[in-house]
This record gives sequence, C-alpha cells and structure tokens, in this order.
Amino acid sequence: MNSSPLSTKEVKLWGGRFEESVSDAVEKFTESISFDKALYKQDIMGSKAHASMLAKQGLMGDSDRDTIIKGLEEIERQIEAGQFIWRTDREDVHMNIEAALTDLVGEPAKKLHTARSRNDQVATDFRLWCRDAIDTIISHIKNLQIALIELALQNEGLIVPGYTHLQRAQPVLLQHLLLAYVEQLERDAGRLLDCRERVNFCPLGACALAGTGLPIDRFMTSDALGFTAPMKNSIDAVSDRDFVLELLSANSITAVHLSRLGEEWVLWASEEFGFLTPSDKVSTGSSIMPQKKNPDPMELVRGKSARVIGDLVSLLVLCKGLPHAYNRDLQEDKEPVFDSVKAIVGMLEVSADFAQNVSFNRERIKKALPAGHLDATTLADYLGIPFRTSHDIVGRSVALCVSRNCEIQDLSLDELNSLHPIFDKDVYEYLGVENSIKKFRSYGSTGSECVAAQLDYWISKFGINKER
Amino acid sequence: MNSSPLSTKEVKLWGGRFEESVSDAVEKFTESISFDKALYKQDIMGSKAHASMLAKQGLMGDSDRDTIIKGLEEIERQIEAGQFIWRTDREDVHMNIEAALTDLVGEPAKKLHTARSRNDQVATDFRLWCRDAIDTIISHIKNLQIALIELALQNEGLIVPGYTHLQRAQPVLLQHLLLAYVEQLERDAGRLLDCRERVNFCPLGACALAGTGLPIDRFMTSDALGFTAPMKNSIDAVSDRDFVLELLSANSITAVHLSRLGEEWVLWASEEFGFLTPSDKVSTGSSIMPQKKNPDPMELVRGKSARVIGDLVSLLVLCKGLPHAYNRDLQEDKEPVFDSVKAIVGMLEVSADFAQNVSFNRERIKKALPAGHLDATTLADYLGIPFRTSHDIVGRSVALCVSRNCEIQDLSLDELNSLHPIFDKDVYEYLGVENSIKKFRSYGSTGSECVAAQLDYWISKFGINKER
Amino acid sequence: MNSSPLSTKEVKLWGGRFEESVSDAVEKFTESISFDKALYKQDIMGSKAHASMLAKQGLMGDSDRDTIIKGLEEIERQIEAGQFIWRTDREDVHMNIEAALTDLVGEPAKKLHTARSRNDQVATDFRLWCRDAIDTIISHIKNLQIALIELALQNEGLIVPGYTHLQRAQPVLLQHLLLAYVEQLERDAGRLLDCRERVNFCPLGACALAGTGLPIDRFMTSDALGFTAPMKNSIDAVSDRDFVLELLSANSITAVHLSRLGEEWVLWASEEFGFLTPSDKVSTGSSIMPQKKNPDPMELVRGKSARVIGDLVSLLVLCKGLPHAYNRDLQEDKEPVFDSVKAIVGMLEVSADFAQNVSFNRERIKKALPAGHLDATTLADYLGIPFRTSHDIVGRSVALCVSRNCEIQDLSLDELNSLHPIFDKDVYEYLGVENSIKKFRSYGSTGSECVAAQLDYWISKFGINKER
Amino acid sequence: MNSSPLSTKEVKLWGGRFEESVSDAVEKFTESISFDKALYKQDIMGSKAHASMLAKQGLMGDSDRDTIIKGLEEIERQIEAGQFIWRTDREDVHMNIEAALTDLVGEPAKKLHTARSRNDQVATDFRLWCRDAIDTIISHIKNLQIALIELALQNEGLIVPGYTHLQRAQPVLLQHLLLAYVEQLERDAGRLLDCRERVNFCPLGACALAGTGLPIDRFMTSDALGFTAPMKNSIDAVSDRDFVLELLSANSITAVHLSRLGEEWVLWASEEFGFLTPSDKVSTGSSIMPQKKNPDPMELVRGKSARVIGDLVSLLVLCKGLPHAYNRDLQEDKEPVFDSVKAIVGMLEVSADFAQNVSFNRERIKKALPAGHLDATTLADYLGIPFRTSHDIVGRSVALCVSRNCEIQDLSLDELNSLHPIFDKDVYEYLGVENSIKKFRSYGSTGSECVAAQLDYWISKFGINKER
Repeated sequence: MNSSPLSTKEVKLWGGRFEESVSDAVEKFTESISFDKALYKQDIMGSKAHASMLAKQGLMGDSDRDTIIKGLEEIERQIEAGQFIWRTDREDVHMNIEAALTDLVGEPAKKLHTARSRNDQVATDFRLWCRDAIDTIISHIKNLQIALIELALQNEGLIVPGYTHLQRAQPVLLQHLLLAYVEQLERDAGRLLDCRERVNFCPLGACALAGTGLPIDRFMTSDALGFTAPMKNSIDAVSDRDFVLELLSANSITAVHLSRLGEEWVLWASEEFGFLTPSDKVSTGSSIMPQKKNPDPMELVRGKSARVIGDLVSLLVLCKGLPHAYNRDLQEDKEPVFDSVKAIVGMLEVSADFAQNVSFNRERIKKALPAGHLDATTLADYLGIPFRTSHDIVGRSVALCVSRNCEIQDLSLDELNSLHPIFDKDVYEYLGVENSIKKFRSYGSTGSECVAAQLDYWISKFGINKER
Repeated sequence: MNSSPLSTKEVKLWGGRFEESVSDAVEKFTESISFDKALYKQDIMGSKAHASMLAKQGLMGDSDRDTIIKGLEEIERQIEAGQFIWRTDREDVHMNIEAALTDLVGEPAKKLHTARSRNDQVATDFRLWCRDAIDTIISHIKNLQIALIELALQNEGLIVPGYTHLQRAQPVLLQHLLLAYVEQLERDAGRLLDCRERVNFCPLGACALAGTGLPIDRFMTSDALGFTAPMKNSIDAVSDRDFVLELLSANSITAVHLSRLGEEWVLWASEEFGFLTPSDKVSTGSSIMPQKKNPDPMELVRGKSARVIGDLVSLLVLCKGLPHAYNRDLQEDKEPVFDSVKAIVGMLEVSADFAQNVSFNRERIKKALPAGHLDATTLADYLGIPFRTSHDIVGRSVALCVSRNCEIQDLSLDELNSLHPIFDKDVYEYLGVENSIKKFRSYGSTGSECVAAQLDYWISKFGINKER
Repeated sequence: MNSSPLSTKEVKLWGGRFEESVSDAVEKFTESISFDKALYKQDIMGSKAHASMLAKQGLMGDSDRDTIIKGLEEIERQIEAGQFIWRTDREDVHMNIEAALTDLVGEPAKKLHTARSRNDQVATDFRLWCRDAIDTIISHIKNLQIALIELALQNEGLIVPGYTHLQRAQPVLLQHLLLAYVEQLERDAGRLLDCRERVNFCPLGACALAGTGLPIDRFMTSDALGFTAPMKNSIDAVSDRDFVLELLSANSITAVHLSRLGEEWVLWASEEFGFLTPSDKVSTGSSIMPQKKNPDPMELVRGKSARVIGDLVSLLVLCKGLPHAYNRDLQEDKEPVFDSVKAIVGMLEVSADFAQNVSFNRERIKKALPAGHLDATTLADYLGIPFRTSHDIVGRSVALCVSRNCEIQDLSLDELNSLHPIFDKDVYEYLGVENSIKKFRSYGSTGSECVAAQLDYWISKFGINKER
Repeated sequence: MNSSPLSTKEVKLWGGRFEESVSDAVEKFTESISFDKALYKQDIMGSKAHASMLAKQGLMGDSDRDTIIKGLEEIERQIEAGQFIWRTDREDVHMNIEAALTDLVGEPAKKLHTARSRNDQVATDFRLWCRDAIDTIISHIKNLQIALIELALQNEGLIVPGYTHLQRAQPVLLQHLLLAYVEQLERDAGRLLDCRERVNFCPLGACALAGTGLPIDRFMTSDALGFTAPMKNSIDAVSDRDFVLELLSANSITAVHLSRLGEEWVLWASEEFGFLTPSDKVSTGSSIMPQKKNPDPMELVRGKSARVIGDLVSLLVLCKGLPHAYNRDLQEDKEPVFDSVKAIVGMLEVSADFAQNVSFNRERIKKALPAGHLDATTLADYLGIPFRTSHDIVGRSVALCVSRNCEIQDLSLDELNSLHPIFDKDVYEYLGVENSIKKFRSYGSTGSECVAAQLDYWISKFGINKER
C-alpha cells in the first residue's frame, strides 16, 4: 500500500477519510479473521469467478485477470500449506486475501473489488460454504442410516420391549426400532435438501446493497459458482440470513433425533437394562472406578444437541429486529454456523461408529422379556369384542397377574374364564412375546413380514449388500 | 370398579387395574383438555374415517358405523354451538369425545377405539391441524406480499436512502426495498410448503407404537383424510414430533423477517426519520401524552417474534433426550404450536393491515435525501479506474464535503480536480440521488428498469391489477 | 355494564386527537386484557395507594379519595364475584378498571390518573405480582424439600446404586441422594430471595418516563405498597424488565433441577430399574395397554421444564435491542411470566405429591445391588498405596470378576493375591455394598453418620417432626 | 515432550480393564483438552491444596508433597511460557497435567489422585474459574458505569428527547438517560455478586460422587482455595451445574441491557437522529462507500448479545433431564461459559471505550428539540384539573398544532382559550422544552436538581473526580 515499513498499523482499505486509527480494544472486538478464515476457499473461488466475469465484460483486461487468478491460486496454496499469515489488522478473510494479493501482484489486484462489496462477497462465500456443509451432513446422515440398517441385519428376529412412558408396552422387533431412526434421519436429509435449494442462489453483484451501474453479468458468476441463478433483489441479497437460520433449524431437528438415540442407548447400556454392550473402541473408563465402561460417545451425542440448539437461538436472536440492509451484527452469523455444522457432523459420525461397535445381549434381553405383560394388547385383539370391554377384561387379567406375580400366559384357562367366559384354549397362541409379534400384520407394524418389507426398501434404496 | 354410584369422578377409560383415583393436583396438572380441545374437528374427522375403515374391513358393522358417524356429527354440532361440556376428569379431547359418544349412542361407541390408541390418534389429529395451519399461514403470507406490492405500486419513483449499519449508504427506490420483503416472504412460504409435504403422512393405525394384528387398511384412512400415504414405521409414527419442530422453525424465520419489517417501520415512523405516517386505523395514542401517535402494531409485530422463537425453543427442549416411543412429555407439544401459529397469523395480518394504511411522506423524504453522500459509490463507478484507487479519491471528496458541510455535487470541477485530475464535467451526470438511481443497471439492482422488471414478475405471479 | 347496546366503540382514553378508530384486526392484535386482567388485585392496590397519596399531597380532595377507594373496592368485589365485564375495547386492565370506576363514581375517577401513566402503573402492578409469585414459589419449594426429607426419613438405611454415566458407580444411601435434591432446591429458593430484593423497588411516580412536576410523594406510595424504596431513575423505572428476566432465569434453573428429578424417577419406575412404585393416586393408565402404570406426573414435570425455558427465551428475545424508554413490545412481557410461574408451581406441587405417594422397593433394590462392582472404589481405598497403582490392581480384579461373572467379594484371597500380594483377609471387611457404605467418612459423604448429620440439619431447619 | 516418536497411544489412566483402544473418531469427539486447558491455573491451584491436605492428614509424605508442588509449579511455568505440549490422547486438562507431573517427578505423582476424582476436580476448577470471571466482569461493569457517569458530567444541561414507542414523548436530560444505564448495570453487578456467593462453595473431596473413606479434611482445602465452605452433599457437589446456569443468566441480562445501549447509540449515530458522533477510534468505514462512518462497535455489542443468550440456552438444554450424578454430557458445560464470559467482557470494554470516544452534537440536538410537542405533558400538569379532562384539552391543542404545523408555544392565548377558557398567560412558563425540564421535581425525575442528586450519589459511590 505504501513503501514505508508497517511500523504501526496498516491503513485500512476503507480508511480514506479517517484521521485516527481504531483503538486496540475495538480492533480486537471487531475482528473476524480468527474465524472467517474458514471461508478462504469460497472467497478465492468467488474472486476468481468475479475476475473472469469482469474481464469478459471488459471491466478488466485479460492479463490482469490472469495475474489475479494466478495470484489467488498462489495464496490458496500458501493457506493450505500453513504458510499464509492471517493479520488481525486486516480484519477479515476478504481483506486479508485482497491485501495479500496486492502485496503479491500489485496494481491489478486493485481492480478486483470493482462492482463488488464485502457485503455481497461475504454472502456469496457463506452460501457456498453452507452448500458444501449441507452436502457433507447429508452424506454423514446416509452413513448413519446404513450403519443402523446393517445393525438391523445383524439382529434379525431379536425381540425387545417397546416402551411408552418408559414402561414396557408391547414387544417390538429391534429391527423395527432401528428403522424408526432411519425414517427420522431420512426426513432430516430431506429438510437439508430443501434448504439447499434455497441456499443455492447467488448474491454476487448485489454490491453494497443496491447493485451497480457497471455492466456486470451476474448470470455468468452465478453459473461459474454452481448456483441456480442470481438473487433477484440486491437488498435482500446482502441483508437476509434466512438460509443459515434454516440450516441451523434443520441441524437442530437432527440433533434432537440424535439426542433421543443417545438417551436410548445410554439407557440400554446401563446395568439395569443391560440390553447393549459397546465395544472398547467406543467406550471410556473412569479415573477412580476401574470397573466402569461408559457409553460416553452417546452421552456426548446427547449433550452436543444442546450446542446445536443454542447456536440456532443465537442466530435467531442476532437477526431479530435488524433494519435493512447489512448491519455489522451480521458478522456474528458465522461462528454459530461453523459450530453447529461441526457438532452435527461429529454427532452423526460417532453415532455411526457406535452403531458399528455395539452388540445386543440376546440372552439377557430374552430373559428379561416375559416381565411387563407385553402381550396384553395382543390379548385385547384376541377377544374381538368392543374394545372398551376387552380393555377392561385384559386390565383385570393383568391385575390378577400382578397380585400373583406371574405373566398372563401363566394363568389357567379356568382362571381366565373366571374373569370372563369368552376365553378359549386358543388364547395361548396369542400370549407370550413371540406369539404376540407373530400376530402383528398392519402396514408399518412390528410384524416380522412388515418389518422385512421396510428393511428391503432401505436395503434396495442404499444398495446395501445383505449378505456381508 | 365397584358397585357404588360414581357420584363424583367417572372411572377413567384406562382405569381397569387401578384401585385408587388420581389426586386432584395430579389431575389438574396432567389434564390437557383446556387446550387440546382445539383439535376437536380433526379428532372427529379422524374418528369418522377410522369407523368407515373398520366397517369396510369387517371389524364393525355398517349400522354401528352409521350410528357412530351420526353421533360424532351431533357432537361436532354441539361443540360448535358452544353446547358441549368439556370435562377435565375426561382428561383430553379424545376421551371427551369418545365418552360423550358413548353417553350419546351407547354400545357401538365402545367399538370405535378398536385398532387405535390415543398415541396414533393424537399424532393424526395434530398433523391434520398443522396441515390446515400451514395453509392458513401461507395465505396470510400471500396477502402481505400483495399488500407490499400494492404499496410499491402506489409509490412509484420514490427514492429513499438505503442503509448499511443504519448509516445512509446509497439511494434506492422504495419499491426495491418493499420487494426485498416480498422475496423474503416468498422463501418463508416455500419453507412451509416443504414442511407441509413432510407433515402430510398418516400415523393412524400405528396404534400404541407397534401396529396391530387386526386387518385394518391404513391406506384407506390415509386417503380419506387427504394424506399422501400412511407412515411406514409405527414407532416413528407415534413418537416423533419433527413435523412441529419444522413448522415452528419456519414460523421463527418468518417471525424474524417480520421483526425486521417492524423495526424498520417503527424507525421510519419516528419524528427523526419522518418517512412514514400510519393512519389512525393502525396507530394508538398515549394515556398521558396526547400528541403521541404510536405505530404500536409494528412494535408488537416485532415483539411477538419473541414468543414465536420461545415456542420453538420450548419444543426443542421438550423433545431433547426423550427415549422411544411416546412419552407423556409430548402432551406439552401442543400449546407452543397453537401459540406460534396464532402469533404468526396475527403478525402477518396486522402487517398487511399496516401496509394498507400507511403513507410515505414524499416531500420530507425528498428534502432529507441530499444528506449523507448517497451518490459517493456512483461516483466511484464513474471514475472507471482501479477500484481501490477510485475508492480513495471518492473518500477524499467526501472528506472535503464534510469539512465544508456540503454535498459532492456542490463541489466545483476545480475542487474535484484538485483531488485528482480525472474528473470531467460529465461527472455531474452521476451526482445527486436521482442521477445515481438512473445509473444502476445490474440485474436485481435498484435501477428503475430493473425494479420495474421485478415488480412485473410479482404482479403477474399474483394476478394483481396494476391500475387500481 | 349498561343497558344500551354498544353500537359504536367507546372513545379511547387516549383518543383526543384521533379521527378514526382503530381497525378490528389491530384492536384484537394489540389488546392485552385477555391476560393482564390477572393483575387486577395489584392494579387496585396501586390505585388506592396512589389516591391516598394524591389526597395527602393536596392533589385531590379527601372525599374524592374516599369515593375512589370505595369504588375500587366495589370493582374488586365484582371481579372476584365474576360479575365484572372485561372489555376488549378498553384494551387493558388499567383502562378497564379506570373506565369502570368512572362509570361507577363519575367525575372523581378522572382525577385518579393524575401524576401517573400506564407506563409506571403497569411496572408497579407487575412488580407487586412478581413479588407475590416469588413468595408462592418459595413456599412450594419448601414443601417439596419437606416431602423429600420425610421420604428420606421413611427410608433409613436403604442403599441404592449411585450412578455416573448412568453406569453403577458406588453405593449410596437413598437418603443421601434425596438430600442432594434438597440442597439444589435450597439454592433455588436463595436465588428467588435475591431476585425478590431487586424486584421490590417502586416505579410508581415515574409517570410516562420523566417523572412529574406535581408535588407527589413517591416514598409514601412505596411504603404503602410494601416496597423497599422508590426507584431512583424514572427512565429506568418504566423501561427495564430485568426483574422478570431474573425471575424467569431462576425458574428455569429450578425447572432444570426438577427435570432431573423427573428423569430419575421415571427411570426408577421402569420395569428395568424397578426401584420405585408410585401409588395409583399419582399414576395413570393406558387407553390400549391395560397393564401400564405410568409415572406421568414426573414425565410432565420433566416436560414442563421446556416451557419454562422457552418462556425465558421469549423474554430475552423480546427485550433485546429495544431503545429506551417504554416500547409496546413490552406488552408481551406478561404471558411468559404468568406461564412460567404457573408451570413451576405445578411442577413443585406435583413433585411433592409424587414424593408423598411413592414407595421404594427395598427387596428388589437389595437383590439388584450386588451387580455392578459398586465396592471397587472402596477396595482402592483399602489398598492404601499410590492411587494410580491401586487403581490398576482394582481394575484387574474387576476384569477377573467380569470374566467369571462374579462379584469382587466372591474372589478368594488367593485369587486376589494372584493379582497383587498386598491383599489380606481384612479385605473382606471392605467388600460388599454394606461394608462399603460403612467405610465412607468424609464430610458430605454418603457414610451413615455423615448423612444423619445432613438430615439433622434439615430436620431442624424446617422443624420437621422425626417421629411421625 | 520426549524424543521418541509416539508410535502407539499411551495407555489411558483409566484403561486397566480395557483391551482395545478407543477409535480416532471417538477420541476426537470426546476430547476436551482443546478448550478445558483454560482451567490449568485453577487445576494446579486445586492440586496444590489437595496435596498439602493429603500430607497434613498423613495420606502422603511431606517430601512427596513438596515434590508434587514443585512439579506443578514447573508445569505452570511451562504452560505460561508456551512450552507445554497439550496432548489430545490425554483427553483433558486434569489428565494432561497429572500425566506430565508423572513424567516429570515419577512415583510421587501417582499419589496425587488419592481421595479425588475428575468429577470433584473439574467441579472445583470450574467454580474457581467462574469466581474469577465474576470478579472480572464486575470490574468491567464498574468501568462502564464510570465512563457513563463521566460522559454525563461532560454533558451537563443537555436536553434530549425522551422516547416511548420511539416517538418523542417528553424532554429529558441526557444525564438522566445515561444514569438509567448506570442503574441497570448496578443491578447487573448485584446479580453477579449474589451468584458469586453461591458459586463459592467447595466440591473437592466429593470424589466420584459418594465421598471417601480416607480421612481427608475438606475444610482445609476449602479454606486454602478461598471458598466459604465445603459443599454439604457429595452427590450434589459433582452433578449440579446451577452455578454456571446462574452466571450465564446474569450475563444474558447484562447482555440485554448492553444490546439496548447498542441499539440506542446506533440510532443516535444515524444521519436522521444525528445526536451522536463516535470518534475515528471507535468507528469503521466501508470498503465501497467512502463516506461511511459506522458505529460498528455498538452494532457488535448489540449483536454479541445473541451469543450470550445462545450460550445460556445451550447450558439449559444440556442439563435438562440428566439423571444423577455426573454424566459425560456435562463436559459440554465449559465452552458456552468461556464464550459467554469472553463476549460479555468484550461488550463491556468496548462500550466503555465508545462512551469515552463519543461526542453529542449539542447544536443539532437543540435545533431538533422543538419538534414533537415534548411539552404536552407539562401542559397537562399546568392545567391542574382532573387529569382525564386536561388530557383531552391538551390533545386538542396538539391536534391544532399538527394542522398548523407549529408547536404549542406558537399558539396564541386566544387560540388556546378557544379550546378551553382555563388558559392564562403564565401557561407560556410551562411551554418549550427548557421550561418543561425546569418544572419536573418528583423524586427520580428528570428535573435538574433531581438528576444532580442522582449524579452526586454515583460520583460519591465511585469516588469520581468531578473536576477533571
């Protein structure tokens, strides 16, 4: 910028009319380079597209364009090699890269910011980053779905208690429960895909807020960057952040789903449930209680849902009540997004890892199943009389069992008939969890064939090899 | 339960094995009828479809079905006429209606709950309710969009300051700013439509959590209720609430958009801005300061965004960490949704009302426009030299103006050339806000033709009559 | 209210300069009477104090004061008898009462609003309401503490597993665990008391925002209403709502505590844990599964924590970014507070009810205790060698047990010594949960004497009769 | 750390019974060293106190104690000199320091973890950290209060519009408004002091959750670390995080206060208000609009309130529904706290910086004051007739002014009397903002003497030199 040594601070790019430099506290408080450097790849990609467009539109010579592009590629190389020095006095990723380009290639670099502002530049970078993030999250969702399906395949026929109110309710196939998660994750991916559609519009060329009088071609840059189209309104383009609110909402819902998986597996890994054992690869121990084998990763999956929700709240609060167009508050939009995406990817990754390293304790589960009168509802179906009446008979059967500390199938036919004359000896074909499971046949139910059909759907959708 | 008359509390429908009735504090704490009665229409619709299906599948006689349907219609009539007595001891909307049906038609009513549980019943009712709510919200979004477009049509050619950091930045057409909101609202509607797709699957027939052994036809009920298809997994069907999380996320984003509109119009209505005057129909006064004319509706629009966000947070916290399948916690899912939908509908409605009753103070705006060097960026475009250099020249021009307390167009050519020899007399065609607006020509910019094209798009999309 | 039909709307009290009445949508959207009527008692109390002060200061005659006070008392009577008609067109509780007073007593009523504004009036009412709410919550906290202490007294000597990561860690006395909640609740009460100190300052006399030129005596009204002192700055007095933010923060922390109690008791009531059985008075059944006995109240306690947190978020979002002084947004401050207080009172009440109606299954717990190597840490203490070394030895002992499916006390001395020669036969005095509990002796530990001392502290603090 | 390559992973300190090491994904996901190293100073302080206590109680030799303390001090020195290598495979700050101590001093280090667990250790470290954080925040609050008071001193007599609904309401002294913030900040400090009381209890010695059988002296460590007393219940000590919930609640309320200051000063710095000019030291420019001078620091103060609120929400969600005692979820408790404290300190610091570098534009404010009928309420006081009647008269006066585009003082006595015969010529002593201000005299009002008294209170409280 000038030849004198940078003994003090560099003049800001926006510093034309300023006579005094900003205080240290303010500089430290307002800097964003410590986190927005994560956008370097998108920033460089955007600048390359912008330079090409400027050249094609005659706003820059071809040789300047080539110099700029070559310079940007060199800077990208330096960044990835860890050789680039990020400077706080250059505020943000945009200024750092542009100033470094000027240091590197001189005069041509000064033409790069033609028909561009940091306002549309950061919106473009951020949309590109979010688009990539969405793709990454979706691929991790798919990985977890596959891990759950494979876990289901490994546990064919395993019956577990189904709960409501954490009380045993009815028997279900473990496969059925695992596929419930797969369904939820599928909707999570669907939400992200819908979000991606809305993210993928190009703000570049909106400039500060009003567009420009220069003859730029916004469709060219939009195409070059893989966007669907340029955004239609320049004020909207620089001032709205609904695309990140939507991404963080989608992440929060996914996080809630994963928190429920976490809760469930932590419960199941307890001594009391004893249904599930994580392998050493996915558990940790205690510094003072040597016998402990803790399902920490799933506790942390549950716990990290909190930060994903907190990040969403931060962004909603941030945007609430801001007038148009760009406000500096919006600088705060990035960290919650980076944090949310990192957390959700980690949660998905570790959940898949856990699913691949967990075993279900068939014997223990089998032994525990008779307790809890899981067949009571099947018995009500057996009776085939108005439901509210059958519900009453079954209720009294269970009360009898509770008083005798036995299961329904342990009651004799006489005892059953003492409650109501409707029972016949075929009632025993409906009692016990195995019989119970066999009776289910409604679409989407836990009946063996229904679950097999659900499973086939997913196997075929994901091209999973059933035999491995 | 016992032979004594039920002089006080009725036996609960689930009371078979219970010997003691629930305490008053618990009954009061756990009741939901005070709010879930809002689902009565959906509950009755679902029960009618369920009864028809049971009859078709031979699980109930045709005459029982007819009796039930007639009884349900009578109950609906009573409810809508305000004659129905909601009973807290009957807990919720489902029990109230079913018990009233039994009171009304006797024995046949007891067959209605065959192959159904409150778990799938409430999920069905709630999805139907949300589907309607989404349609309602979308129609209100459209109304507000139309109101904004019509407001734009009434204010052709009006130039206002465009702000960044709430500092004047560049001139923009008011129409352009109004269309920025229209764009945002269009994405809001898009999010709701995507949400509607995911909402519109039918949980009915999932029963408590595992499905049933009875030969029900879930496709029949799904069709009858206008759903896309039955949900594929019964555990998922009764235990997930992601559809309301998504709806409340969408509402929160819309609420943030409206809070920004609220903020902006509150600012513009202030004495200091003075750009906008609401009519008496949409303002209120002060109990002590008689001269006040407050834009209260827009303050409340801004304020009510808070509850919409709070409702979302409630639901996220509610669902976090719940194991499968249904947990009583989920009873708490309804009030935040009802509250959020009511708030967002009110916000949209009142914003449209405000838009229809506001006038922009052309004269005052025009007088205020010269301040703030809004043409500085256009001047930078004029220079046509490397941007970083032109930025510096313009910066010094503005500094000169600030010291002289004048606008750039007030500087003489000599003065300008004292800063840099590049200026020619055609520079004055670029100065002043009107000239400035004329120069914009990039796609999506605030240039007159660009805005006209945007406006035409919306007029045609909504079939608005330009001439009225 | 009067016999003539309300064919047109009443003129608003602030309507002097308005020519057109507010639209129906706006009136409905901006009304607050549907919820702020909950402040009627405080509003009347405040008006009585204000009238007395005005009379004493010569701003109103004594007979007007008497008329006003008598009128207000009549209105209070009408409200409590359900005879008062709240009118939406009178907007809020203040206007409703003042206008009704005018209807009732005529001219004198018009003097009541002297040196007062709705801004200071509502702030006063709301602080009075919050002060009462705090006292109510604190008394419910105390009730729950007492219920927990009594539950502890009923379960002397009962050892339960202590968990970390929901894995069994060390044996603890149930009393010790129950007292952990009592400690937490004590801090909750402490927070509320601190909040009460800050709530209890009087805004009355701050008027709209700037105070008044009339010779009022703010200390007199402050004293009459039981406040510590009048607030020192009139702008602060009408525009800040930090006192409700603090109350809702305190409630949120209490709610989190109760959600943990809820979670724990729901777990303990499961078939798998089986530690706890609620009586019929505090459980509910299933409409389809007759055997179920659900700990619903504690699920809802857990669930309702969500709305308490959501309410806090609403209020934080509401207040964020509002300029001084009063803004209409603040009308939205009441519902979250009413909702939060109602929820937290219900949660405390039902938790106490549950604690009084729950029994611990001594036999089942005793049978389950040996599993999980709960004595491992005590064994480490026994060894008395550098901790990291003993930790290793104990770890290997447990590994041996796991491989043999036995408990540590089942290992012979030879087996133990095969791991390390340090063991002597007195080791068996440290093994088994009963021995383990006996060994604890640090302050605040689960050792019997330590717990007895803790218990004595609480018994004496609350004056509980140990013998009942 | 050492020269040999770390070819395999180090055995975990808790690894005794584990046969397989944890997967990379899990290790990365579960590590906390990247953020909890911030606790190093507290961790070392705690370990020194613990070692001293163990020695005094005969659980460790004096020479071991001295070796350990010297070792810890060396490690602290290394950390502060940037020479310490934090290892992810050593998981957290506790393990890193303990393992490094073992590397450094060998066998004695293995005795340090006697009668301690990471559960009580981290709770102790964290409480110490929060205590320091509270002290730091309070000192920054005081700095901002002083800056505001000094700003008030510099602007004696300056009258500004007071707003309600962002509409001009009554004139107030700028000093009065600035002191409103000071009041709010004083309550913020009070909340933190109350929180500090509850933070300052010592969990050390609670061990994993149950205490210990070793003869430790918890009062000694509590004293040594400056705590009020040891916590009374070991389960409570390790499992509750209400102290950070309270700290983050207090921060959130402070953040809301600062967001309002931010909003206000951003408004006032706009061209439209034009009341305030930040110096170059605390403003920034635009990369494309050279004339801009943005009050960015205050925008960011407003914006950063969002993250402080989000952090609180994260922690509330985190703790919701966790059973006792320690769960791994709690590892997530630190980052939101670190982030919240850093943000709030920055916000306070920059606000003070801004207050010290802002000037109010007396001339422009004075010129703008007559607009808005700020004296209307004073006029109502003048009339001295029943308020509702005077309110009506004043309302009509203002309506007349609006129609004539003048101020009330511009109306002639005849004109006034045409509205009501009550006016006399002394009315003009009540009109105009200066007259208006002179009339205020209620306690806490904006009257000059009242404000001077408030100011004196603060000056004396903080020992501010009025003359500088």
